[in-house]
Amino acid sequence: MSMIRRLPLSIAVLVAAPAFAAPVKADPVRQYRIAHEWEIVRELADFVAIPNAGRTAAEMEPNVRALDAMLRRRGFTVTRIQTDGGKPSIIARLDVAGARRTLGFYAHFDGQPVSQPDWRTPPFEPVLRAGAAVDAPVIDLAGKPVALPPEARLYGRSASDDKAPIVAILRAMDALRAGGQAPAANVILFLDGDEESGSPDIAAQLRDHAGALKADLWILCDGPVHSSGAQQVILGARGVASLELTAYGPARGLHSGHYGNWVPNPALALARLLAAMRDEDGVVTIPGFEDGVKLADAEEQRLLDALPAVEDGLRRDLRIGRTLGSPRLMDGVIRPALNIRGISAGAVGDKAANVIPTRAMASIDMRLVPGQVPDHVRAVTERFFRDQGWFVTAREPDAETLLSHVKVLRAEWGPGYPGYRAAASAPGTQAVIRAVTRALGKPPLVTPMLGGSIPMSVIADGLATPAVLLPTVNADNAQHAANENLRLRNLWDGIDMFAAILRDFDGGGR
Amino acid sequence: MSMIRRLPLSIAVLVAAPAFAAPVKADPVRQYRIAHEWEIVRELADFVAIPNAGRTAAEMEPNVRALDAMLRRRGFTVTRIQTDGGKPSIIARLDVAGARRTLGFYAHFDGQPVSQPDWRTPPFEPVLRAGAAVDAPVIDLAGKPVALPPEARLYGRSASDDKAPIVAILRAMDALRAGGQAPAANVILFLDGDEESGSPDIAAQLRDHAGALKADLWILCDGPVHSSGAQQVILGARGVASLELTAYGPARGLHSGHYGNWVPNPALALARLLAAMRDEDGVVTIPGFEDGVKLADAEEQRLLDALPAVEDGLRRDLRIGRTLGSPRLMDGVIRPALNIRGISAGAVGDKAANVIPTRAMASIDMRLVPGQVPDHVRAVTERFFRDQGWFVTAREPDAETLLSHVKVLRAEWGPGYPGYRAAASAPGTQAVIRAVTRALGKPPLVTPMLGGSIPMSVIADGLATPAVLLPTVNADNAQHAANENLRLRNLWDGIDMFAAILRDFDGGGR
Repeated sequence: MSMIRRLPLSIAVLVAAPAFAAPVKADPVRQYRIAHEWEIVRELADFVAIPNAGRTAAEMEPNVRALDAMLRRRGFTVTRIQTDGGKPSIIARLDVAGARRTLGFYAHFDGQPVSQPDWRTPPFEPVLRAGAAVDAPVIDLAGKPVALPPEARLYGRSASDDKAPIVAILRAMDALRAGGQAPAANVILFLDGDEESGSPDIAAQLRDHAGALKADLWILCDGPVHSSGAQQVILGARGVASLELTAYGPARGLHSGHYGNWVPNPALALARLLAAMRDEDGVVTIPGFEDGVKLADAEEQRLLDALPAVEDGLRRDLRIGRTLGSPRLMDGVIRPALNIRGISAGAVGDKAANVIPTRAMASIDMRLVPGQVPDHVRAVTERFFRDQGWFVTAREPDAETLLSHVKVLRAEWGPGYPGYRAAASAPGTQAVIRAVTRALGKPPLVTPMLGGSIPMSVIADGLATPAVLLPTVNADNAQHAANENLRLRNLWDGIDMFAAILRDFDGGGR
Repeated sequence: MSMIRRLPLSIAVLVAAPAFAAPVKADPVRQYRIAHEWEIVRELADFVAIPNAGRTAAEMEPNVRALDAMLRRRGFTVTRIQTDGGKPSIIARLDVAGARRTLGFYAHFDGQPVSQPDWRTPPFEPVLRAGAAVDAPVIDLAGKPVALPPEARLYGRSASDDKAPIVAILRAMDALRAGGQAPAANVILFLDGDEESGSPDIAAQLRDHAGALKADLWILCDGPVHSSGAQQVILGARGVASLELTAYGPARGLHSGHYGNWVPNPALALARLLAAMRDEDGVVTIPGFEDGVKLADAEEQRLLDALPAVEDGLRRDLRIGRTLGSPRLMDGVIRPALNIRGISAGAVGDKAANVIPTRAMASIDMRLVPGQVPDHVRAVTERFFRDQGWFVTAREPDAETLLSHVKVLRAEWGPGYPGYRAAASAPGTQAVIRAVTRALGKPPLVTPMLGGSIPMSVIADGLATPAVLLPTVNADNAQHAANENLRLRNLWDGIDMFAAILRDFDGGGR
């Protein structure tokens, strides 16, 4: 196990002192970053260039190898963990001489699929552009280093979600070291290789490695800063459940003229079912779906109300003529959600043939909030399907099944986990808020809930440890979609914040 | 203009005589066919091997060249017709010395798209198989000729729809000629190159070439025989209208967790709209859609009731647990229909990402019946969309349009035409029924309506000429779908029927 020797206390205090004031050029972390910007972006770009949307362990392997090298270079002890048939994840640990606390950081290195047609440049050929626009001039990363504008953006899958925080943490440690400083706590990294599939193995992995993962606080590093640009510390994250639906039509594609009035159309039947699952305001209409939901209490609602208004600009930017539910974006994420992420049947446009499709498919993701139990959500959803007249099966139905039921629906659930939300007053959370305040010179927003899903509940409950979520990337990063990107300024801020947390963490007791 | 000299009347009468009895081996048409089976299938296979699902004139050109050669070889005068920007069609004419009547045959040589994933062999690499099953042993068409089982099937796009009838007509003429017979009427072929797109130019083409297309009867050669296997003469065909719908979501793909409770999902909105267009029984619920519909009169209902029951076997074969509307398949085709031929949004299965899609698309085909006016159908459908809260536009909406409306729907109509149905008692129809009876030794079914769409109304009304529909291919031909195929026995029967009609046509007055 590697160790970094802590500096004598007197020096640490001296060095830490300027961080209580507004950050200045003289800050050694900042000095390090400014001197190494080009090298830092190159390290991230090299990491992003490794495809990470793979669905198999083998496809993820090059990421594991790259991380192993990056971590060992910094003195971490690296343990590769993998559950049978699953994708590999990484536990890395660096002990600090004299440290009485341990800080855990969670991030993930897998990425969402890249099948979206609108990528301007290939998702795994990272491109640095000099501004926010997707067609801003390219800065040649293979060329001679130049001064980097903080508004420059690195394009590529996982540039922001979630490889950037990994590089930011490592560079924060480099910066401390370069300035003669050491972390105030031992450091554990849990780097998840299967987060975008719902981290199917993480509960077992936490159980199996609970000893190695014992920490005073887990900081989850994922998600964007507030869309106003303000930094935020987030108290919770939604859970997730995902569902693939297949409705069955005739055994072979049928001429829609000869058979269209007699043979049911599976696309229409599925459309009818989807339409019944959610109302025009986005509220899930599956009876029992919201059972147990813990909505915002008075303090949480106060925090929500204090978040900056971004809605008007966002609506124009997204070109949407209306919004769902509460006019406030963040009010919505306190509730659960159901999203149709895909529908497919037959063909459209030039490829459309006058055929009754043989099947129709839909892909759904659900966002769960504290109080919702995933097993219960699955049960009430399937009961709802049956109440709508469907025979529900998890497998491809045989001829007898198809013939003996009016409507047959295959429902395949992906992995999932519950939502999580801690109190803003938790000591670890307060320590992170203070460190961020020091690093950036102003207090962060405190946001009750991340709209996205990260396995915060699994980590916090599985390790019986408090958890907090510290996002760093830009809100307009096109995460999960085409042209995902990272704004460099967010990477710089991330390094500053992680360095402040690492340097000053005292368990939150002060 | 080419001519075939009619044989002296006395010989023609002698030769025609056996056709009034049940067909026997001695029939010269049948003798010709038996002697040339291999050559006939090869000619059709070569024709099917020419890709015909192209959406441009250039892609259809090889079909035109092949047809030109096939027709000129038989003495036809060939005129290539093409409307600006459209796909080419063909008018071919063969005059018979002494003939006082003219018979027009309509068929088409374009095919439906071939994007269906289930093709066992490539759609334009025709394969002959020794039986009905899609995995029946292959008979090598490049090999030594063998005796062909009548249950053998030729697989490939347009093997049945609609290249088979073209070859059957030409081979019927070859057979007459080989037997020293001549058609009783001049022959015009109108070979449509754009039928599967709704024959967008046919009305103008009929108008432009009305003189060259003047005939006593138009026989439309498309569609399958009855699914019981019985030959049928069909009195009408449904019209068609097609529609591509696009519903718009956010301007870029959005993380469904961060935005799913606030940004409307276009897939769900479109699903809701589709679900509102048709009820669970398949009845179109667009107000005014059925305005003017002429349902079956007593005589037509008697004809419908007389059709053989095929429903139980068909339902099992198709593996469907229920059927729509009337339990009788053919009762349905008297009514109009609306089919969802495709839906597409985001992605499903392994490619699904947790994103709110930027748009959702659906492709719809409508089957129109006599009494329905396509313009009216389009108008009431768009009114229905507006009544459901949509702003409807034919073009890609700009940002201002998207921002200023709650829901924006792009509706693009394809070409279309009305339905058509003639009386069973029409003289030309009766002449065809008699010829088919002679050729096959038993009377055909008389079916009021083809479920599919062919531009029968456009031809009959545009040329002010009676029309009748004579299908020849097998009902289980997988027309429009994967693994389209032609049963050889249907090709042989087609040659017999076309030969009898050509030989004996007297305008229906006898």
